[in-house]
Amino acid sequence: MPDFDMVLVGGTGDLARRKLLPALFDAHRAGLLHPAARILATGSHPSTTEEYVATLEQGMRPGLEHAPPGDWASFVARLCYVQADARQPEHFDALARKVLSRQPEVVVCYLATAPHLFVPICEQFGRTGLNQSNVRVVLEKPLGHDLDSNEAINAAVARYFAEEQIYRIDHYLGKESVQNLMAIRFGNALFEPLWRREWVQDVQITIAEELGVEGRGDFYDQTGALRDMVQNHLLQLLCMVAMEPPTSLTEDAVRDEKIKILKALKPITPQEVAEKTVRGQYRAGAIAGKPVPGYLEEPGIAPDSRTETFVAIKAEIANWRWAGVPFYLRTGKRMQSRVAEIVIHFRDVPHAIFPRPLTLSPQNRLVIRLQPEESIRLYFLVKQPGDTVALTPTSLDLDFANSFKVRRAGAYERLLLDVIRGRLGLFVRRDEQVQAWRWVEPIIDTWADSSLPPKPYTAGTWGPAASSALLSRDDALWHEEV
Amino acid sequence: MPDFDMVLVGGTGDLARRKLLPALFDAHRAGLLHPAARILATGSHPSTTEEYVATLEQGMRPGLEHAPPGDWASFVARLCYVQADARQPEHFDALARKVLSRQPEVVVCYLATAPHLFVPICEQFGRTGLNQSNVRVVLEKPLGHDLDSNEAINAAVARYFAEEQIYRIDHYLGKESVQNLMAIRFGNALFEPLWRREWVQDVQITIAEELGVEGRGDFYDQTGALRDMVQNHLLQLLCMVAMEPPTSLTEDAVRDEKIKILKALKPITPQEVAEKTVRGQYRAGAIAGKPVPGYLEEPGIAPDSRTETFVAIKAEIANWRWAGVPFYLRTGKRMQSRVAEIVIHFRDVPHAIFPRPLTLSPQNRLVIRLQPEESIRLYFLVKQPGDTVALTPTSLDLDFANSFKVRRAGAYERLLLDVIRGRLGLFVRRDEQVQAWRWVEPIIDTWADSSLPPKPYTAGTWGPAASSALLSRDDALWHEEV
Repeated sequence: MPDFDMVLVGGTGDLARRKLLPALFDAHRAGLLHPAARILATGSHPSTTEEYVATLEQGMRPGLEHAPPGDWASFVARLCYVQADARQPEHFDALARKVLSRQPEVVVCYLATAPHLFVPICEQFGRTGLNQSNVRVVLEKPLGHDLDSNEAINAAVARYFAEEQIYRIDHYLGKESVQNLMAIRFGNALFEPLWRREWVQDVQITIAEELGVEGRGDFYDQTGALRDMVQNHLLQLLCMVAMEPPTSLTEDAVRDEKIKILKALKPITPQEVAEKTVRGQYRAGAIAGKPVPGYLEEPGIAPDSRTETFVAIKAEIANWRWAGVPFYLRTGKRMQSRVAEIVIHFRDVPHAIFPRPLTLSPQNRLVIRLQPEESIRLYFLVKQPGDTVALTPTSLDLDFANSFKVRRAGAYERLLLDVIRGRLGLFVRRDEQVQAWRWVEPIIDTWADSSLPPKPYTAGTWGPAASSALLSRDDALWHEEV
Repeated sequence: MPDFDMVLVGGTGDLARRKLLPALFDAHRAGLLHPAARILATGSHPSTTEEYVATLEQGMRPGLEHAPPGDWASFVARLCYVQADARQPEHFDALARKVLSRQPEVVVCYLATAPHLFVPICEQFGRTGLNQSNVRVVLEKPLGHDLDSNEAINAAVARYFAEEQIYRIDHYLGKESVQNLMAIRFGNALFEPLWRREWVQDVQITIAEELGVEGRGDFYDQTGALRDMVQNHLLQLLCMVAMEPPTSLTEDAVRDEKIKILKALKPITPQEVAEKTVRGQYRAGAIAGKPVPGYLEEPGIAPDSRTETFVAIKAEIANWRWAGVPFYLRTGKRMQSRVAEIVIHFRDVPHAIFPRPLTLSPQNRLVIRLQPEESIRLYFLVKQPGDTVALTPTSLDLDFANSFKVRRAGAYERLLLDVIRGRLGLFVRRDEQVQAWRWVEPIIDTWADSSLPPKPYTAGTWGPAASSALLSRDDALWHEEV
């Protein structure tokens, strides 16, 4: 693991406190950080490192309880607060001197800040020499609001950094279970022969949240679920499910296969939007028995907002492997439970010789659950025990937490370590973003032009009825097992 | 369930006491027997029903402890002892009168007796009219000692009974897990695409016993493992694994597919016997820590006996589905543990992109265990948790006893109920026996002509080293997980 300095722009922000510094602390405790490595947290206000650390400790407290105090002390010894207001070039001169004087092997500039600051900050890095070949810049979503704004940011960043220096984070790609999806597909000869149109009826990808907009109303109302979740996370998961076997695990081998899928996504034309997509918005309801307000009553939301908090899409991939196989994507806030999962729904037998109850839908499914817990479950039919030849559903189960009693790295920890090591494989390439936006934009535009509002759904449900109808038109059903 | 009389020829014997009457008692307790149904147990000696029941109760005692006394009382009310010495025609006249006077829907004549009595007894049944179309005759193994003696018995029985009246029992086919094998293969579209030469490296079928000859030395020394286990049980299991999907579950649809496999078995020529078969004989050793004598020291065994107590065979099936896929068959007495299982060993990935430890053999296996407990286990590789891309083996598990908390019928119960209902599917057809003997006989003959004795192995092991060598010549390994 190389020596590094990490410049954490937005070091006082929410992401740094909730995700990045805890992830670095975990890596530190596991002995995965170089002894000399430093973290330079920046903020726009003047402060001392002592004050910063005290505030940080306050904010991270609940997570620190199980850590020995010595671990925390040695971790904060790496920390250093540096004031860096994007409008003050001299702040960046000082920051650059601090880094360049030590000459660490690797410099990571993590932009955990509002996206409108990406370009001015990159400009400062470029001006002060913090863009040499050993510098890597990490960009958090949202990288723009549509194809044009995304390309504007990417083009501006590209003025100062080469593509191989740019790490666009999609934290779903850092999850163990997503990497496991590749291991399952390409580390075994068992699943790959089935992983194609001949044997797969449909694929379902769900990311359901129980949370609402959680104080981010202003941001969310400008964004909506399609931009916030589909354009990035869901399409990335779709690529991981659908891509051809890469020839190696090197970054471009994998990303070249992913881009092929994004390019093969059948465009959804404005005429098809009503048929192939569902947009929803939650109304007041209850989550786990507790009443929650509707989206329009949340702070920061326009009372006549048409922003979607739920999306369901029937996507199709126009290639030999997947032609005719629907990929149903679904995400929403205030859903019945928090779950992210990928369901490979295999076809039924071509010719049934066993008697089956009429209510029994074809039960061959591989369910890869990403959260709340990671598991793999293979559903199939066996003989009903006893004096009969009837079939009955069962499943083979693998629960990762119980099966592997080892520490599992969180998604951010894994991705930060990959940045430090210079492994680009789990980061999104510029052309992937272009393709994803290209596919998503006609849907956004058609919705914006439509006179119809989003379909309402009650908080604590699985979304509007239209979501079930989207599948039932194809004689399909969402895999809902909670 | 039709009304029936079951004539249990050999009603005082070991099989009746240990297997058949307990199975009928289970079915009785489960309410599966017609209220008027009777069991007429025969023996060669004069006795009363009361004496017979008292002896039976004594013999079955350990198994009766959990049954309410009322159940046992109502069961024995069905029982009736009839003296029937095969040399005394008048005994059979009386027996036939007893049955024919009541006119039950179905008459089952179960020949739980030494095979040399099959023909004289069938002759008596024929003479006394106990071969009408509602009579079914059940034949226990061994049905002869080779193809000629087998055909002699079958031809003699065929003089009195039509083929569809003849139920040749192979109790392995009555096991839930063997029927489950069909349910798994043909009730799901998930496994069938993989179930062929393109994806299967080899198939392994093992029936290992801890027991020795257990007082049956005289019989066993004339028989050996090839006749006792391979010709029937192992080849039947092989058929269940390898057959094409039948068009229905009717008896001849399934048996037509099985016979196709038996006919497609590549003959093992005398020149190939040394290369493709292993015969072994156990020496003194220990089972579960307790010393046990060698085969040659067992009572009833000739001191220079060359009878095999262990067989391993590399079988091949010459058809499109299985060409080139070895089916390794193995059975033995005094093995390390009692286990019967079918292992489908899938091929490794054609191109590995994940780093793997050199010691890790390809781990894609479906293991269907028939005994001691029934389970299905799918072995494959997943990502090793943590900050790595290495693979690690894991398995998806299904334990039937824990998953299905319902009473499971034993093999004999299931088969007896099938005889009563007239379902022939799980019984062996005459042509299947012919084909199985045809394939086995050249091996028997070559061994008999050979000057080489069986390979010795220590009791409590997995057989002679030659058994491992048989597989390692193909770069394969027995799946030994105990």
